[in-house]
Amino acid sequence: MTRTPEKLLESSLNALEAVRSNAPLVHCITNNVVTNFTANALLALRASPAMVDIPEEAGLFAQVASGLLINLGTPHEEQRLAMREAVTAASWAATPWVLDPVAIGALPVRTALALELRDARPTIVRGNASEIIALAGAGAGGRGTVAADDVDAAFDAALSLASSTGGVIAVSGPVDLVTDGERIARLANGSTLLTRITGGGCALGAVMAAFASVDEDRFVTTVAAVTVYCVAAEIAAETASGPGSFAVSFLDALATVDADTIAKRAVIR
Amino acid sequence: MTRTPEKLLESSLNALEAVRSNAPLVHCITNNVVTNFTANALLALRASPAMVDIPEEAGLFAQVASGLLINLGTPHEEQRLAMREAVTAASWAATPWVLDPVAIGALPVRTALALELRDARPTIVRGNASEIIALAGAGAGGRGTVAADDVDAAFDAALSLASSTGGVIAVSGPVDLVTDGERIARLANGSTLLTRITGGGCALGAVMAAFASVDEDRFVTTVAAVTVYCVAAEIAAETASGPGSFAVSFLDALATVDADTIAKRAVIR
Amino acid sequence: MTRTPEKLLESSLNALEAVRSNAPLVHCITNNVVTNFTANALLALRASPAMVDIPEEAGLFAQVASGLLINLGTPHEEQRLAMREAVTAASWAATPWVLDPVAIGALPVRTALALELRDARPTIVRGNASEIIALAGAGAGGRGTVAADDVDAAFDAALSLASSTGGVIAVSGPVDLVTDGERIARLANGSTLLTRITGGGCALGAVMAAFASVDEDRFVTTVAAVTVYCVAAEIAAETASGPGSFAVSFLDALATVDADTIAKRAVIR
Repeated sequence: MTRTPEKLLESSLNALEAVRSNAPLVHCITNNVVTNFTANALLALRASPAMVDIPEEAGLFAQVASGLLINLGTPHEEQRLAMREAVTAASWAATPWVLDPVAIGALPVRTALALELRDARPTIVRGNASEIIALAGAGAGGRGTVAADDVDAAFDAALSLASSTGGVIAVSGPVDLVTDGERIARLANGSTLLTRITGGGCALGAVMAAFASVDEDRFVTTVAAVTVYCVAAEIAAETASGPGSFAVSFLDALATVDADTIAKRAVIR
Repeated sequence: MTRTPEKLLESSLNALEAVRSNAPLVHCITNNVVTNFTANALLALRASPAMVDIPEEAGLFAQVASGLLINLGTPHEEQRLAMREAVTAASWAATPWVLDPVAIGALPVRTALALELRDARPTIVRGNASEIIALAGAGAGGRGTVAADDVDAAFDAALSLASSTGGVIAVSGPVDLVTDGERIARLANGSTLLTRITGGGCALGAVMAAFASVDEDRFVTTVAAVTVYCVAAEIAAETASGPGSFAVSFLDALATVDADTIAKRAVIR
Repeated sequence: MTRTPEKLLESSLNALEAVRSNAPLVHCITNNVVTNFTANALLALRASPAMVDIPEEAGLFAQVASGLLINLGTPHEEQRLAMREAVTAASWAATPWVLDPVAIGALPVRTALALELRDARPTIVRGNASEIIALAGAGAGGRGTVAADDVDAAFDAALSLASSTGGVIAVSGPVDLVTDGERIARLANGSTLLTRITGGGCALGAVMAAFASVDEDRFVTTVAAVTVYCVAAEIAAETASGPGSFAVSFLDALATVDADTIAKRAVIR
């Protein structure tokens, strides 16, 4: 089952090419801080975002979407209903879906919802170490969107979650960890500037949903999503004068980065 | 009733000048993905945006606003109530209002609301071909915000809607179509980069509301809004390195584009 | 009690340094137009934003946050409940909190809520002249976010509010006024481009909450917040080609401006 990093890189480049040519329709139910940046990140990759986040529409849309993101950043009541509808429909229609349990642990509404959605077996879970530990039921969470724990501290929790959900778990940090319970990748691209703009992590969840639509092997597509995203961040950081210009250059880089550049820069272990 | 393109261009430049000096107060009830970009587009034109989108305030505000935008992108329950209030008040106070029936067709909540609002006779309707066809009752809509139909396919639907609403219909696409049922303009400015940023279309609806406040002839003001907006997009596209820098340059261009540049570039047929 | 401008400048630089090293957790319940820009302004200053705006979470979070912003721009029902919860908890836990009574006066829902929250004695109130006059109970408010009144016209209202709340009042305008009822500062930095981007004022409220967390003397921290913010705006305006590039450069400047530059440019009277 294990792939060499070279194989993973090759598959990542194929996945990027497929996203750009398929223009997957990505259904996002996400927090009201990052909707704009998330949609723009998807559009930069030629994916097609749709933020359908009300009851009686979310379920219908999740059935026809190529991928679905559920992000718990600002889980208003209508969104919570829409999330449940969408997840039920995605499971039924085999639409791959990503759960991003933002800031769970100490905050009760989103924590209860995250545990409920976890049991619906998300295709992919994306979070920082504290969120992954909290979702696995093993910790108290972080401090808002800032992880209190290291990626390594979440290693066991990630394996345990992969096992209980049957899906892929991605833990963000200076070196990202991606695992499906059997295979483990560590991805060392990126820029600290991604943590200085809002949505730097949240938009990656949407990008994972886009990539998940092009290949059944979601370990591979998640590695691809992280690699493309983080290489684009590196490119953007080289010319940025600060977080404002970084966000702009990052969208440009997502739209224009080519396979050769990714191959040259990717650090996959 | 028909105006030559030269007359339309001259009127467009007058309308831009009037928007910039009147600073119209534009009341927007719009989706949570594009609020920021929409407000910034209006501010770039020296209009004054106000996103008053709750019941018991929206009706009062629509009476004093210079123009109103109703955009159905994320129609949460409070917004739906606020929209009905605002439209009733706008009709009563003769505030011009724009309906943008985002992604109607397959999604039932917004489709029912769009048909109800259509019957309240919007001053202007703005949409892609699929949305216009669905609003005219003649089709099943598109795929999220992506039109499944050509602008030409919406020609009859646009004429029919213009007739039933008594208003102006604007169909967006590579070449935009604007008609009031008698006069027809085709506007060929713009950039494909407008489709690679979120809000590229939605913000134009707000700009149409701003322009509608400066002249009673809304066929003319809608042609003006589209022309100014799309020429600014062309200018921005010339220096953009991708969608991120395009969005930034576009706001700059909206704020700084002058009459000579518009006159030189405008393609109105 | 009075400090010379030199002392105020020195304290301002210390406060900036403290924000950058403490990374205060700033709890924002703010309007859906400016969430993104507000979070990015905080992140640029190395503060940590968290938009926890639902009931049953907002109260818990306000107790652990370093500072809290309550902005009434789009006060949906769940937000109104969350605001009340958060303010009660902040008062109990002595979390400093900022009230930004956006567009109060003619709009009844937010006006009633603003008066109620005023009586809960905000640590800082930030608004334009019309909003401050309306909050003091002395006027009918402005026109959306555009003040109908001069800063000087709000002088008495600001003093009266400072007295009734026991807090600091900041009135924005070409020259900003900050007072705690005894001390009065007039701050003359800034750029008119701040009024051409949405959130230019709203994000300052969040920055005031961040600064309020580093020192008990909130007159000093509010002067510091305004000075740093407005000097960054000046720097950004020097290279901007319009409002789009200004917003980007502004975030860069907030992240990179150093003490020497602020000392050289600050105009505090």
